[in-house]
Amino acid sequence: MSNIQRGIAEFIGTFWLVLGGCGSAVISAAFPEVGIGLLGVSLAFGLTVVTMAFAIGHISGCHLNPAVTFGLWAGGRFDGKDIPLYVIAQTLGAIAAAFTLFVIATGKADYSLAANGLAANGVGEGSPGGYAMMTGFLVELLLTFFFLFVIMGATDAKAPAGFAPLAIGLMLALIHLISIPVTNTSVNPARSTGPALVVGGLALQQLWLFWVAPILGGLLGGFVYKELNKTAA
Amino acid sequence: MSNIQRGIAEFIGTFWLVLGGCGSAVISAAFPEVGIGLLGVSLAFGLTVVTMAFAIGHISGCHLNPAVTFGLWAGGRFDGKDIPLYVIAQTLGAIAAAFTLFVIATGKADYSLAANGLAANGVGEGSPGGYAMMTGFLVELLLTFFFLFVIMGATDAKAPAGFAPLAIGLMLALIHLISIPVTNTSVNPARSTGPALVVGGLALQQLWLFWVAPILGGLLGGFVYKELNKTAA
Amino acid sequence: MSNIQRGIAEFIGTFWLVLGGCGSAVISAAFPEVGIGLLGVSLAFGLTVVTMAFAIGHISGCHLNPAVTFGLWAGGRFDGKDIPLYVIAQTLGAIAAAFTLFVIATGKADYSLAANGLAANGVGEGSPGGYAMMTGFLVELLLTFFFLFVIMGATDAKAPAGFAPLAIGLMLALIHLISIPVTNTSVNPARSTGPALVVGGLALQQLWLFWVAPILGGLLGGFVYKELNKTAA
Amino acid sequence: MSNIQRGIAEFIGTFWLVLGGCGSAVISAAFPEVGIGLLGVSLAFGLTVVTMAFAIGHISGCHLNPAVTFGLWAGGRFDGKDIPLYVIAQTLGAIAAAFTLFVIATGKADYSLAANGLAANGVGEGSPGGYAMMTGFLVELLLTFFFLFVIMGATDAKAPAGFAPLAIGLMLALIHLISIPVTNTSVNPARSTGPALVVGGLALQQLWLFWVAPILGGLLGGFVYKELNKTAA
Repeated sequence: MSNIQRGIAEFIGTFWLVLGGCGSAVISAAFPEVGIGLLGVSLAFGLTVVTMAFAIGHISGCHLNPAVTFGLWAGGRFDGKDIPLYVIAQTLGAIAAAFTLFVIATGKADYSLAANGLAANGVGEGSPGGYAMMTGFLVELLLTFFFLFVIMGATDAKAPAGFAPLAIGLMLALIHLISIPVTNTSVNPARSTGPALVVGGLALQQLWLFWVAPILGGLLGGFVYKELNKTAA
Repeated sequence: MSNIQRGIAEFIGTFWLVLGGCGSAVISAAFPEVGIGLLGVSLAFGLTVVTMAFAIGHISGCHLNPAVTFGLWAGGRFDGKDIPLYVIAQTLGAIAAAFTLFVIATGKADYSLAANGLAANGVGEGSPGGYAMMTGFLVELLLTFFFLFVIMGATDAKAPAGFAPLAIGLMLALIHLISIPVTNTSVNPARSTGPALVVGGLALQQLWLFWVAPILGGLLGGFVYKELNKTAA
Repeated sequence: MSNIQRGIAEFIGTFWLVLGGCGSAVISAAFPEVGIGLLGVSLAFGLTVVTMAFAIGHISGCHLNPAVTFGLWAGGRFDGKDIPLYVIAQTLGAIAAAFTLFVIATGKADYSLAANGLAANGVGEGSPGGYAMMTGFLVELLLTFFFLFVIMGATDAKAPAGFAPLAIGLMLALIHLISIPVTNTSVNPARSTGPALVVGGLALQQLWLFWVAPILGGLLGGFVYKELNKTAA
Repeated sequence: MSNIQRGIAEFIGTFWLVLGGCGSAVISAAFPEVGIGLLGVSLAFGLTVVTMAFAIGHISGCHLNPAVTFGLWAGGRFDGKDIPLYVIAQTLGAIAAAFTLFVIATGKADYSLAANGLAANGVGEGSPGGYAMMTGFLVELLLTFFFLFVIMGATDAKAPAGFAPLAIGLMLALIHLISIPVTNTSVNPARSTGPALVVGGLALQQLWLFWVAPILGGLLGGFVYKELNKTAA
């Protein structure tokens, strides 16, 4: 596949991750009496990856996430010179999706961006459950570490073929089941950037954390799996 | 397989989609205290496709949806001369299921069609969350676009073999997780037609939207995937 | 495998179906504030089949249900002379599980069998949502028809290999998502017999319905799939 | 793979099981209005195994649980001389995860270990639903029996290849759907040991039960499957 095709695929895929994941949170999570709750939002995020991995895995590898791209590079699975292409396509896709979601959300007469927050990530005051900044940093780093560890393992030539989209998407669902109350769950700098640009304020001030912690965790996860799995060990 | 066999398979499959998806919404979603909510309804719609795709995928391809049939044609995967057969079989199956569901629902003494609505789709006044008509149109178009994009990708010869029923069914579940509050989620003109014919009124007046938007989105989704995936690009 | 091995496998498997499915309903469905609800119970029933089908599919075919055994016979997939062995093993397994579950349930000091009902099936007065007997009969027949239709299709040589346990288990989950309010969902005479023998009363008086309707539906489902799928048609 | 690699893999995997499973319970289960409940916790425990089994199944077999290690030995699938390595690595991983989770939980200003309990297991006074000690013992033994039975079957050479991680992880989810109210669900001595060491008190006094009952059940499950499946029978 050409770089243009791979970039478009990453743009479309990350658009879908943010539209589907943040969209379910904004539109359906707290719907009166029958809302899908954090469990439904967790599954929605996971299923955006399951579905896109089956759809575009063979085009771009379906990263949809700068931390994944960096982590796969650290794990020796991705060429460093393609990092900018992927990260830019992912971030643009996420931003486009966040603005699209904002347009959809305002189709409801009583919508209030301030109250809803468009599923932006945050720590401290911005944390859904009031978790401290250091805790949020640790959680994002740790969960992205395990995310990349599982991605590396599930796409290993020794793992069962064909199941990686399920394994990786369900991993993202699991990560959300654990951590939405802490940071609203990012583990994905692009996913954080989209809503932060629409919402501004605190979300934008804290955006650095959702680039630094997931990428650090991803680099570590890719590297540790690679080292652990060395056949000569 | 003969055209008769394929048509019967599409009839049975779409009957199941509407009986299972709308049935779970009508019967179980708001059951007191332990109801399955919108999350359960989303999974039910998705699982109707998962189950039928494994059961009749090898007979008819298991479209169960005119927007899918049109989209696969736009994507170069389906012969245009078979579109009427499929669309008619799907629509008849959906109508038969909606009337069957109505009979079941009235087996509960205090059932009221007006209050329950039989899971009909709607916008504006007919939208569960009060979303505007233009928003509903945009959401139906956009989600059906992604639906066909994923269907095309997951059934691509380069995608892992055998997983398409899971990928496509889980995609439909995800679409419902995002959008039930907006339009009660259609992305399927046949699914909208069944309940609208039983319920009448507003649902019937707005039925055009649930033919136009999903089919437009489906055509675009099939076409964009085909273009993106051209090996000569 | 010998008949003894196959019978033991069906006994163990059906024990698990009733212990897991009815057990989740009795123990966890209505747990205060965080109970799993009908959605959790639906998934539990489905997962009993997913897990056992992977575990004993290669031993006995993992029917766990007289309606499945009869349906597969009608579909030309099962030898009629083995029906008694399977049905007896399944029914004994279900009865043993129901008594075991009763012992577990009474480990809670304030347990009341009358109030809890041990997840027995019922119609009319015995229906969780107050659905009429004829409605219950129709729903059990119709859902078992589709259950067998999907089982036949998913285990067809033309369907993707290896996925049948998922397809069939998720089908049972879906059936529960639709119909717990109607009959507490049976589609399985053995599953109905276990709790009915423990609870007695209305559940026992109505037990005939949960043998007749599912077996009729199963026979039809197996037969219709076989006819539809004839290559000479 | 070397013993060091296998031990590290078991440490990392069990760390993830406890961090993800107990973490979702501690952080997200009872989040106001949109909490994931026991259904979400059950899925989280199950998905920790699904994800790690795809990631490290090819390194260590992904036991993550002393009862699994003992059970596979009883089933003739695991070399007895490696039992200490696995059990120690699993227990250390679980302890490390419990302390990490405690650090995360205290990142919320109003966190109280006494009130929250860190998802420790218990019976009698320590049982979430107030179930008696003998009931808890029986449930842990019985569910671990079935757990090992399914693990043995799903990893049998005659079972569909590649699906074992899904079958086994979904089995653990199902076990939680049934039994969280009884013992908070262990079926895993390592998982019980981590929180018990942090919480102390009753959880520590009752810890013996969560070593004895699961290991007994696991030994039986592995042995019964092996005997049932003998081809010479």
